[in-house]
Amino acid sequence: MQYKFAENVDALQPSAIREILKFTSMPDVISFAAGNPAPEAFPVDTIRKISAELFEKDPILALQYNITEGYPKLRDLLKQRMAAQQCFDADADDLITTSGAQQANELSCKVLLNRGDTLFCEAPSFIGSLNAFRSYGVDLVGIPMEQDGMDLAAMEEAVKASKSPKLVYVIPNFQNPTGRVMSLEKRKGLYELACKYDFIILEDNPYGDLRFAGNDVPSIKSMDTEHRVIYSGTFSKILAPGLRVGYVSAPKEIIAKITVCKQVADVHTNIWAQAVCAEFLERTDMDTYLKKLRAVYRRKCNLMADGIRRHFSSKVQWEMPQGGLFLWCTLPDDCDMPAFCTKAVQEYSIAVVPGNAFLVDETAPTTSFRLNFSTPSDEQIVKGIEILGGMTKKILGA
Amino acid sequence: MQYKFAENVDALQPSAIREILKFTSMPDVISFAAGNPAPEAFPVDTIRKISAELFEKDPILALQYNITEGYPKLRDLLKQRMAAQQCFDADADDLITTSGAQQANELSCKVLLNRGDTLFCEAPSFIGSLNAFRSYGVDLVGIPMEQDGMDLAAMEEAVKASKSPKLVYVIPNFQNPTGRVMSLEKRKGLYELACKYDFIILEDNPYGDLRFAGNDVPSIKSMDTEHRVIYSGTFSKILAPGLRVGYVSAPKEIIAKITVCKQVADVHTNIWAQAVCAEFLERTDMDTYLKKLRAVYRRKCNLMADGIRRHFSSKVQWEMPQGGLFLWCTLPDDCDMPAFCTKAVQEYSIAVVPGNAFLVDETAPTTSFRLNFSTPSDEQIVKGIEILGGMTKKILGA
Repeated sequence: MQYKFAENVDALQPSAIREILKFTSMPDVISFAAGNPAPEAFPVDTIRKISAELFEKDPILALQYNITEGYPKLRDLLKQRMAAQQCFDADADDLITTSGAQQANELSCKVLLNRGDTLFCEAPSFIGSLNAFRSYGVDLVGIPMEQDGMDLAAMEEAVKASKSPKLVYVIPNFQNPTGRVMSLEKRKGLYELACKYDFIILEDNPYGDLRFAGNDVPSIKSMDTEHRVIYSGTFSKILAPGLRVGYVSAPKEIIAKITVCKQVADVHTNIWAQAVCAEFLERTDMDTYLKKLRAVYRRKCNLMADGIRRHFSSKVQWEMPQGGLFLWCTLPDDCDMPAFCTKAVQEYSIAVVPGNAFLVDETAPTTSFRLNFSTPSDEQIVKGIEILGGMTKKILGA
Repeated sequence: MQYKFAENVDALQPSAIREILKFTSMPDVISFAAGNPAPEAFPVDTIRKISAELFEKDPILALQYNITEGYPKLRDLLKQRMAAQQCFDADADDLITTSGAQQANELSCKVLLNRGDTLFCEAPSFIGSLNAFRSYGVDLVGIPMEQDGMDLAAMEEAVKASKSPKLVYVIPNFQNPTGRVMSLEKRKGLYELACKYDFIILEDNPYGDLRFAGNDVPSIKSMDTEHRVIYSGTFSKILAPGLRVGYVSAPKEIIAKITVCKQVADVHTNIWAQAVCAEFLERTDMDTYLKKLRAVYRRKCNLMADGIRRHFSSKVQWEMPQGGLFLWCTLPDDCDMPAFCTKAVQEYSIAVVPGNAFLVDETAPTTSFRLNFSTPSDEQIVKGIEILGGMTKKILGA
């Protein structure tokens, strides 16, 4: 038969990154294209121990159905943790666990937007979220990124031009793909726009705990006097992504609606994984733990940055991040970036992600590409950056 | 601020069963209202052993990101198993793992239906799926159930009356809530209607492995010469529901679209749980294992049926299932069933689910209610059915 798919998903394609990642399974390819956290930082021994104890003490808990809102102990611990970070207001907010922050972001869109409503995002932004939003047929409008975050003047113009501005999606800390941090001034400015034009902010913070330089900037959620911020977080980058455990803190009314939608999406998140996260939070001095974790990311980022300084053509602009997983590079304006990325993987066996993959309109011009320093080994970083650097010099000159 | 939710989800409410389940946490309430598999049948020792070995041999596999389609080893084993059951055609079909069959059913609707398209279902049917379909704003049309499945004449009339008939959702084996099995004749008849009127069949089979009497009936998927059947299955009832691992076998084009939607929903299903399922399938003689599992369900069902025979008023009609988790009871036509169920839980501390919870229109008249025999202990079944039986006799006479 001829299949006719729903309008919202008919044009939806697998992400361009997936296509690049196919090359990365080829032998000898060094991949800077992934977005995986550093596996050497996974607290394997602790998780193994927690898991064994869980199966010893309460196996039925780990195996039977549980409630949609999440494993109660984990929810309580997260509420405490989020409250301490001013990301949870016990009077106005509720918090539930989700199957990764991906689900938190997808459901935020599902409960709030109709087909055709406008959702604003940074341009470039995280493709996984953009595709989730696209799958609801929303009108996705990208707002150009500046060094300190979204261009707020452009944002205000775009809001004025929209018939139905509903939601803005931002990653204020070590943004994917640029690694940039949104300044306090811009966070305040965006919140003021939200109040002025009555839209909701979806603040996605997967990387906030991975700051290895500079100082923390208050979250937008911490300014949320009008109860218009949805905050999503995850254990993927601080514990392990295979667990698929995230969470969302938002005004109670919104969480109630997200919960109904989560119930029909997957009933509840894997309960063993939620129990592992809860026990981990309870047993671990998180300040000490995160200090060690940040040291791993700092070292790997510095290793990549050192290589870039040494080997890259001076015509490649690049930005030193203060945290997260990514380093953003930009070729000269007259350079054919997609051809550069294709050549890198096909002739030099180095995979990077072309910047257009992160744009609302993937055909829009950009000469940037994304490097990931968390997934490759030290040896791969040193060798791969030297090879990629040699290629930049060959094409662009020293 | 005033929140304005998306049209598709604005009217969506938590399921009526959830409201009933609140009573079940009260002390002394005996619950026949759940839909949980029998916890005493969980293969705890095997899962504990598999989990420990996984963390010994390949912890990074269990913790790092994996591909959306599912853990390759599990997919391969499931393809083999489904092929052996004529539920997977290697030439035409593909198969992916999902976060429970709930996700398989939800995504099937998401990829195929636009707001306003018609989705047909049995009336009554599984409320979790109905709510998933509702969350996409589809026109849900319930087709009356007969003893041997959906009334096909009513189905054909409904299809003719629909402007946009797209999908029919059925649970052919030990249906939730009625416990009924769709006859081979009706399976063939429904497939013929699908071919004649060009719609797709979503065949949900969570309980098929739990047959404890009678003979297996071929799946609708096994008749799928025109590639218009989506088949969803789960480990929830044969292994453990807390794992949240299901799967879906369907024509390749449909699986490709479901995969894109799963990627934006939760990236992939918890990888530890997928590995546990794979190792379990590989190490276990499933025929022997399922034989033992069915014996547990047969015993519990018989225990409940014996109690009903002994204690219920003869005016309560009930149906002896050949498998699954549920037993369907019907009060006389002039009986106020909702009042009966409320009285049962409030005055007699016995929780059952009123049948209207499973209807497309929850206000439609019905005098049936659902009993679950898998979750309560033997003692609870014996005691609870005696109490409920006494109540039926008091209200209806012997």
